[in-house]
This record gives sequence, structure tokens and C-alpha cells, in this order.
Amino acid sequence: MAGVDWSVVPTTEDAGSELYDLIAGLYPICRSLTGEGVRDTLAIIGRDVPLDITEVPSGTQVFDWTVPREWNIRDGWIASPDGTRVVDFRRSNLHVLGYSVPVRERLPLVELREHLFTHPENPDWIPFRTSYYDENWGFCLSSRELERLADADYEVVIDSSLTNGSLTYAESSTTGEIRDEVLFSTYVCHPSLCNDNLSGVALVAVLAKYLRRMSLHYSYRFLFGPGTIGPLCWLWNNEDRLDRVAHGLVLSCAGDSGSLTYKRSRREDAQIDQAAANIVRTAGGSVRPFEPWGGDERQFCSPGFNLPVGALTRTPADHFPGYHSSADNLDLVRSEFLGDSFHAVLNIVDVLETNNRFVNRNPKGEPQLGKRGLYRKVAGGSSIETALLWVLNLSDGEHTLLDISDRSRLPYATIREAAEKLVEHDLLEEAQSR
Amino acid sequence: MAGVDWSVVPTTEDAGSELYDLIAGLYPICRSLTGEGVRDTLAIIGRDVPLDITEVPSGTQVFDWTVPREWNIRDGWIASPDGTRVVDFRRSNLHVLGYSVPVRERLPLVELREHLFTHPENPDWIPFRTSYYDENWGFCLSSRELERLADADYEVVIDSSLTNGSLTYAESSTTGEIRDEVLFSTYVCHPSLCNDNLSGVALVAVLAKYLRRMSLHYSYRFLFGPGTIGPLCWLWNNEDRLDRVAHGLVLSCAGDSGSLTYKRSRREDAQIDQAAANIVRTAGGSVRPFEPWGGDERQFCSPGFNLPVGALTRTPADHFPGYHSSADNLDLVRSEFLGDSFHAVLNIVDVLETNNRFVNRNPKGEPQLGKRGLYRKVAGGSSIETALLWVLNLSDGEHTLLDISDRSRLPYATIREAAEKLVEHDLLEEAQSR
Amino acid sequence: MAGVDWSVVPTTEDAGSELYDLIAGLYPICRSLTGEGVRDTLAIIGRDVPLDITEVPSGTQVFDWTVPREWNIRDGWIASPDGTRVVDFRRSNLHVLGYSVPVRERLPLVELREHLFTHPENPDWIPFRTSYYDENWGFCLSSRELERLADADYEVVIDSSLTNGSLTYAESSTTGEIRDEVLFSTYVCHPSLCNDNLSGVALVAVLAKYLRRMSLHYSYRFLFGPGTIGPLCWLWNNEDRLDRVAHGLVLSCAGDSGSLTYKRSRREDAQIDQAAANIVRTAGGSVRPFEPWGGDERQFCSPGFNLPVGALTRTPADHFPGYHSSADNLDLVRSEFLGDSFHAVLNIVDVLETNNRFVNRNPKGEPQLGKRGLYRKVAGGSSIETALLWVLNLSDGEHTLLDISDRSRLPYATIREAAEKLVEHDLLEEAQSR
Repeated sequence: MAGVDWSVVPTTEDAGSELYDLIAGLYPICRSLTGEGVRDTLAIIGRDVPLDITEVPSGTQVFDWTVPREWNIRDGWIASPDGTRVVDFRRSNLHVLGYSVPVRERLPLVELREHLFTHPENPDWIPFRTSYYDENWGFCLSSRELERLADADYEVVIDSSLTNGSLTYAESSTTGEIRDEVLFSTYVCHPSLCNDNLSGVALVAVLAKYLRRMSLHYSYRFLFGPGTIGPLCWLWNNEDRLDRVAHGLVLSCAGDSGSLTYKRSRREDAQIDQAAANIVRTAGGSVRPFEPWGGDERQFCSPGFNLPVGALTRTPADHFPGYHSSADNLDLVRSEFLGDSFHAVLNIVDVLETNNRFVNRNPKGEPQLGKRGLYRKVAGGSSIETALLWVLNLSDGEHTLLDISDRSRLPYATIREAAEKLVEHDLLEEAQSR
Repeated sequence: MAGVDWSVVPTTEDAGSELYDLIAGLYPICRSLTGEGVRDTLAIIGRDVPLDITEVPSGTQVFDWTVPREWNIRDGWIASPDGTRVVDFRRSNLHVLGYSVPVRERLPLVELREHLFTHPENPDWIPFRTSYYDENWGFCLSSRELERLADADYEVVIDSSLTNGSLTYAESSTTGEIRDEVLFSTYVCHPSLCNDNLSGVALVAVLAKYLRRMSLHYSYRFLFGPGTIGPLCWLWNNEDRLDRVAHGLVLSCAGDSGSLTYKRSRREDAQIDQAAANIVRTAGGSVRPFEPWGGDERQFCSPGFNLPVGALTRTPADHFPGYHSSADNLDLVRSEFLGDSFHAVLNIVDVLETNNRFVNRNPKGEPQLGKRGLYRKVAGGSSIETALLWVLNLSDGEHTLLDISDRSRLPYATIREAAEKLVEHDLLEEAQSR
Repeated sequence: MAGVDWSVVPTTEDAGSELYDLIAGLYPICRSLTGEGVRDTLAIIGRDVPLDITEVPSGTQVFDWTVPREWNIRDGWIASPDGTRVVDFRRSNLHVLGYSVPVRERLPLVELREHLFTHPENPDWIPFRTSYYDENWGFCLSSRELERLADADYEVVIDSSLTNGSLTYAESSTTGEIRDEVLFSTYVCHPSLCNDNLSGVALVAVLAKYLRRMSLHYSYRFLFGPGTIGPLCWLWNNEDRLDRVAHGLVLSCAGDSGSLTYKRSRREDAQIDQAAANIVRTAGGSVRPFEPWGGDERQFCSPGFNLPVGALTRTPADHFPGYHSSADNLDLVRSEFLGDSFHAVLNIVDVLETNNRFVNRNPKGEPQLGKRGLYRKVAGGSSIETALLWVLNLSDGEHTLLDISDRSRLPYATIREAAEKLVEHDLLEEAQSR
């Protein structure tokens, strides 16, 4: 019952700082579905974690989808008649509509307006907008900026390219005792947005860094790709080995102040669902049923794959203030919440690693705990003592430790500790390898 | 996926008027378990709907029951010494206790009182009372009328007959693609009472009228008979073909202002239960478990038949003010509620007709809805877009459209519309005929 | 469907008095895990109920436990320098720590204090404390008594013996129609404590007295032994016949003013669980899930036995004020609650004895209850009439009377009475012996 090697795991505080610093380093890069921004991001992650990079050529047919052309951008602005850049990509990469085709024109405001996007709810925020699959160009700006634009002709420049190239995804993996894998997936296609989803990128990267240092039962895989089409490319390239995916989590929105939220896999009662629900509930978070929209779990949980992959967030995307806008910046995410999310995932890993079935070696009557120094006073006693009794009572080879934690409503860690104590005292033995 | 042909269905308003007018036309007739009142009622229904009439002779043994003698009544009154009719059948047919044997006597008030019935709760209402299986005679009157009777001798006349004859029931049927039937049943044994149950009589009659005009998957059967003994006679005569009854509803109390109420069949989870619960809940109504009392569902749901037959009402009989009294008159039922009940039943029919299983033709990953013009923005988007995703995700040949509606909590009509769109775009196909 | 013969059962009032008097007679005796106090207690019970006494020698290995040495005590006191007994076993047997080894010393208060125990919550109560498996000696006293002790040297005497001897348990049994047994178990190891657990001792004894006078379907067994080790000894001696235990209840805390509480067996849905939950809920009590701590049900419900044995109390031990202290005295238990507990257990027995499956002999349609005088008015009618309909509707050979009571939410006694009426009228017959 090895589980997570906590001796190599940084404290919540230290992990939080490390995650925050990584986010801060990745923040300025302009990422998109494809292009150099994704590659630059992966290069930074690759400093700590060895990455296998896969390039999928534009035009590749992937299930029902076609890999789009590669988009790159150097600059973009709107200049007023006196040459002042009133909207400028260099001030915020959110200003340019993602996947804008190149443009260099002079337009009266009335025509330009059709290409301008503001945030419906907050006049100070620049919205994040894209047009991946409809050719278009445009600028995003705050309502206040728009109001300041006088009725005049403007110079509009987007120095971008949309050409045949490739889509980039990366993965890192560890080899455990068995080939069965735990998959962590996140998306890397958002420009300067922190909670959604640099927090997820950093979380998967730092998980990879520390889980690589442990000897674990499962193999682990860490996937970084653009949203939707990235997982689809990976699924396409790995269709013959998907039976190795024993458990999985899509990680995102890991740094805001909301409590943890687990969204079940399509299977609803896979072991990852039971494990994540247990840990999230113990942490005071909430558990939601599967729904076929949201993040990349949609692809893993499509009916043709139906993989046991859930989604873990703090506040789900679309529900935190500032979502998909310039307000999702380095002030929105906090070190303490990032560290807490990191430890929550490790607690889930620990469950998956140690969730065995045991057999009570003295199943007839309660063993005498007192003579082994394991018992003071159970009724009204400490939770470790009640945990000892629960583990003894339910360890009939049928119930896993997670089952016992769920039924007793005692934390998994307490149940696990009780099981270890009982094994030490020869009162318990493992039922079978798994 | 044909379903209900809404092009031949009158609007809620028009259907409500049609139902109300039919009720008004049937209201004056004095119906009972047997007799000419039932036949007159069926004659009016028969103007719009072809009816098969069955006469079951008095004395016929039907399971544990015996068909009673036929009762007919021409007149009945109580006259004071000066000849004034103080209680008069011609003013309200509720005044005579149902199945009263003939009587022609002069009685002092004190003896007459044993044959007088008033309403326990409201001094202005004439109660509806019968004595089908205990030979008796009597009059029903309001408490106020009773109080006005001076202490005197009264002439009492009931010009009725209770003789060997027959019990009458009628049915209408349509032939669908398959022989399996949907059964709608109502009772026709109440005299001038509107909600309980001319509203049910009218509802089944008008359903028959319009469903006959459609090409439907199921065959449909519409049954009109006296309560309890009527369905028993039908079951007796049709025992060898009851396996055709795929789904059924007992309809009554369809015109009051209460919301819809569905009472499950004894099976609790038959398809009719799932369908009716879904439609009734979407309409803001309530769903109740099966109980072995109430209306004719008791006979269909007796353990020896255990047919999938539930009961749909607005306020259940016995729970609306005025139940079984002169207050259940043409003011209690309203056109708008009758029309709403009619459309609710058609919505249930539409579910039964179209509740197929489908298979997602692109089950691996989500199909790209955008390129087919099916997608704008799902998160926070319209319910048709979330419906598309639910249908795609759960269409694995296992889930019916109703299952998908239940799990997604989206209206069945929305789920059905989404499935049709997906079939149009070759993204979905039917799993099997049913 | 014989069931409990209520003609030999005393009224709640008389049973309560009988139980209270038995408790009062047993109260002065100093019981412990072993010793003469247990034997004296059994001798009193044996006046009304024939008992089989089993003596298990000290040192016997019983599963994971060893039968302890036998403890007996004659006297014990703390005397102040002037010879006054400031703490005296003869005033309350709670004053001496259970299983205290003999001592005869003179000690300064500061050293004596290490052997003194008070009640943490109430300064007036003497706590009940023991040290069965750690050799020790001590005195229990109220905080107020302790405060009054001046700083001086005290004479300390405990005139006890802890020697090889035996542990004593007793059982009584009846022979029913079948060998399968219903087991009632209680513990007899508490000194002068009334609710916990002379109330249980008296309840099992009086149950034995009256159940012996009836002809019953099941055999019954009544077990009296010291807590934990007593049932373990019985299980050890009866391991080859445990398959006879069809249903069981551990009875304790039966005399306080709290409502009834049923704690489920480890199986959670054994027939005893269904029966006790039904009766307790009807009586306004509460039902709790199984937990692996509490009373002797822990042994019966250990995974190697997993017997269908639940626990019935009023307020569970540890939850009533005065628990394990001198406040659990003859004022805490009341005749009326004892009588109520007694009748509750008999009601459970009655369920177990009569909970058969029946078959409706007229399953097609509802039989005509009116012609048999069984029907007045069901909707809004009396519960016996609705019970008749429930029994007829669900008696398909699958549902037991208890199932029907649970589903209809009608009291079991009403359902049973309805079934009897229907059998009388040839409308129902037993499906099979059991």
C-alpha cells in the first residue's frame, strides 16, 4: 500500500507558489488552437517535464473533424486618423479575435463596428473571442474603449497568417507497476487567461513533475493539447490503446477562490467517480452529474469511447466572474487555491493507488484491540478508533477501502491509516492484488 | 418518427370549446350504471365517433361480480300536503338516490327522513348518492331544503323500474401500424355531474375523434362504460386479447382548475408511467404512486391483469370542492383547462408514438456541429443545442428519447426535435423498430 | 397465522410494573464480567424462567479473546485518619473501579488521587468505570466528594479477589414449529445501573416468561451474558448451529423516556431489519444504519458471522443523560416506558411469526367486497378498508404482509387483520408455508 510518496510532495504553500510562478511565466504568450504560442508554452513546460511532441498536419481528417490551418500572429491594431493605436495587440493579446485572417484596410467606424466585440456584462473587460472554423477577422475591446472611438476612418491591421502547418499536442508519461494508466488532460489554447486555463496547464505540469519522482502502481499520462481538437487528435492516434486508460481527469479552472467541483464521467459510477467524489466531498466541495457539454471530457466521454474520465475544477468555467475576459488575469488566481487543488488531485491519486480490498483475519467476533494497544474508547472516541472497527467489520474481501470510507463517512486517509495499522498487527491482509 | 399529426389537432382554445360544448350537451341526461341514460349518452358521442355497443344481460357473472338489473327512471318527487313538489327529479336528477326502487307512498316526515340524504359539508349542495347493490329508495336534497320541510305527511313517488335488461358499454378503435393498443378508458355512469365525470367522457370522445384522423404506430382503443362493472365486463369479454394493451390511461376529472395529476400503474415503471410522468412534470403537475383505490385503474391493475394502465386527472376525484354534489356543475369545469388536458394527453401519445432508441453515427468524439450549422454556443446556450449534445451522447442504442429527456431534464419535445435534426444531418439513425 | 397469543400477554401497564419490580430486585447486586453477582442475578431470573447456565473457565481461548479471571468483591472503602469511611462500597457498588485488584494501604491524598475517578460532566454523579483487561485498582466518586477530601493520609481497602474461576452465561429456549430461532440477547455485567442495562435484562427475562406460554412458529432463545466476552463465548460454543439464528435482537436501554431506536444489522435489509423498522417507525421511533460499535450486535454482526441481529433500545446507551453513572438509577427508568418497550418487541415477534405471502383467489378485477359486508366507502374510508384493497392488490405470491405494510404505510397489525378477514371470506390463501 505505497500510494503517493508525500515526502517528495511540496507543501500546499510551496506548491501554490510554484504553480503561480509557472502561470505568471506562461501568461504573456499568445496561444491559440495552433501555432507558435502553443509550442512556446510547451517549451517552458518541457524544462521540468520531458515531453513527447506530436504535430498533426493541417487538413488531417480526425473522426468527424478536420485539423484546421495553423494560425500565427505578429501584430494587430486599430489606429485613429492621427496614427494613435487605439486598440493594440501588444497591450493585450485578447484584443485580436482568435484565428483572425490578415487584414490591412482603412474603414469608417460604422463598417469597422461589425468586427468589434465587447463584453456583454462588464464595460471594463475585454472579451475573449475566437472564430476557429468560420473565416473572419475582428477586434475585442471594452465597451468603454468602444465608446471613446470618434466617428472617423480607422486604419486596421492584423498581421497574422493562416496557412497549412500543423496542430501541436504534447504528452508526458511515467511507467508504473502496471501498464494501466491514469490520464490527466488539459488544454493549452487560451491566450492570456489565467484561471481558464493556465491554472490547468500549470497543475498538470507540476503533477507530472512530482509524480515522476514516485514509484507508483499505475502508469501516468499527462496530456497538453488545444481544446476539443487536441484530445480528438490524441484519441485518433491512440485508438488501439485506449483500454489502458483506467482512470482520468480533465483539469482546469484550478486557481479561483471557489470550492472544488467534480463532474462525473459519463459512466457516473466509475472508480474515478467514486474516488474524486469522496475526496471532493471531504474537502467541502460539490459533485455534479455528467453533462455532455463543458470541457474536453466531452470527447473522452463520447459514447464510442465512454472512458472513465471526469472533470475537476474549482468554480467551473463559465461560472466564475471574469470568465473569458481580461478579468481572468493574474489577480484572479491565488497561490493558496492552486496549492489546494494540487493536493486534492494527489489525494485522488492516493486513493486510486491504494484502494484495495482487504480480509479481516479474525472475522469471527471483534478482535481484542485493547491488548494490542489499538483501543481506548470507541463510542464517542476518536475517528481512528471508529475507523479500525469499520475496516475490520467490512473487510470481507468485497468492500474496497473507498467503499468503507463512503459507508462510514470517515475520510479516506483515516480509513487507509486504520487499514495499515491493522495490517501491521496481522489483523488484516490484502484480499487480492486489485 | 411520425407521432401526433398536429396539423389536424385543434388549438387548446378550440379543443376546450369543443369539449365544453359536448359536456353541456350531455349534462341534462340522467345516467346510471345501466339504463337509457347511458345509451342516450353514447348516441350523442356516436355522432362523431363510430362506436361498437355491447349489451351485457343482467345476471351475467363477470369474475366475482354479477351484472345488476337495469335501472330506468321517469320521474320522482316529494309533495307536501298541498301538492307542492318540494323535491323534484325534474329540477335535478341528483334528487333521486341512484338505483332507487319504485315507491308511491304517503309518509310522515319522521319516517321519510330515513330516506333523505344531505351533503355533510355544504348546506346548499345536493349530494350524489347511489345504492347499486343494496335495494333501497331515497332522495338527496340540500340541508337548507330539508330544514324547510314542515312536520307533516308527504306524498313520495319514484317512478322507476329495476328489471332484467342489460348493462351497456361502448368502444371505438383505430388500426395502427401494429396491433398493440393504447387504451383510453372512462366511465359514463354519473348523472348531471361535470368534472366527475362528463369531462372524462368528453375527453375520450374528442381524443377518439382526432386520433382517428392520423396515421399512427399504435392502434388505439377508447372505452366508455359504467364505473367498475363496465371495465370488468370489457375485461371479461376481452381476456384473450389483453396482451395487446401496450399502454393505457384512465381519464377523468379533466376540467377543473387544478394542475395535472398522474397516478402510476401498479407496475410503477411501465413505459406509460415514464411517459406520463415526464409530460405531467414538464407541465408543472404532480405524479403519485399507485394505490389500489380510486377509479377504474383498480380493475386494470388488479394482480391478475396487472396492465400498464395509469390514471390522469387534474385534481383527483374526492379532492376537488364540489365532488359528488350539485356543485360539480357547468361552472366548475372550464374550457381552458379542458383544452389543456386534451393537449397533455396528445403529448403523452406523441411520446408513446416516437419514443425510439437511436444510434449516434459518429460515436467517437463529438461530431462537429458547427460545420453543419447546428451549433452556436452550448454552454449557457439554448436548450435545443444542449438537447443535440444529450441526444448524441446518450444515443448508444440503449437509451430511449424518453430516457434522454428524463436524464437531461429537457422537455421531451425538445429532445425529439433534436433527434429529428440529427437524423436529417445523418448524424443519428434509429436503433431498431422499437 | 397464529402469531403472538395476546391473551396471555399482560397489558402495557402490568408488564411495566412487572419489569420495574424485577429491575428493583436486581438493582442492589454488584455484577461484573464474572463472579457471584452475575450468578445471583441469574438465580433471580431463574425463578420465572428455566435457565441453562454455562461456566467458561478463566483462560479459555475464545476466538481472539481469553476469558479473564473471575472477580469477586466483598467490601471496599477509603477511610480518613479518624476512621470515617469517606468512600464506601456499601453505599454504592459504583464506588469501586470494576475488576480492582485487592489493596490494603495507607496513602497520602496526592498518591491516592491517581486512583480516583470522577464524572467529567456532572459534579454530583459517581461514574461507572472498569479496568477489565489492565490490572489496576481504584475508586469512583463524585467531584463534590473529592473536593471535600482534606489533604491527609487515607486508609484504602479493596477486599476483592481476581482468581481463576469462570465466566457465567445463561440461556433459555423454547421449541417452536421449526428449529429456526429468534435470538434475544442482553448483557448482565453492569452493577447498580438501571437503564443500561437492568432494563434489558428484565425485558429479555419477561419476554422469555411470556413467549414460553405460547405456541409459536419459530423457536426462541434468550441469552444473558457479560458484554462482548459473553456473546463471544456463546458464539464459540454454538458455532456449528448458528445457521439456526433466523432473526435476532440485542435489547438494552429499554426504560428511559426516549422514543424507540432500531439499529440495523450489518446486512441492513434482513427480515428483522424490515420488521423492526416497520414497528419502530409506526411507533414514532427512529431507525439508524448499522455501525460497527455499540453493544453486543458488534459480535453477532462481525463479518465472519454476519448474523441478522439488530439492536433495539429507547435512547441508545451513551446518549441518555446519566449514562454510566449513579444517575442511571431507579428514577431514570419508568414503568410506562418499560411496558411500551415490551409491547414493541412483541409486535416485532408478531411480524416475524405471521409475515407470510398470500395469493388473491380472485386476482382478476377487484372482488366485490360489498356483498361480503367488507366494504363501505374506501376513498377517504377507514384504514381497514384501504388495507383490504392493498392486501388484495399485492397478494400475488411475491409480496409479504410486511412488504404490503411498508408500501401502503399502513400499520402491520392493520394489514395482518385485513389478510385474516380476507382468508375468512375465501378471498385469500397462503402462498406457501414461509
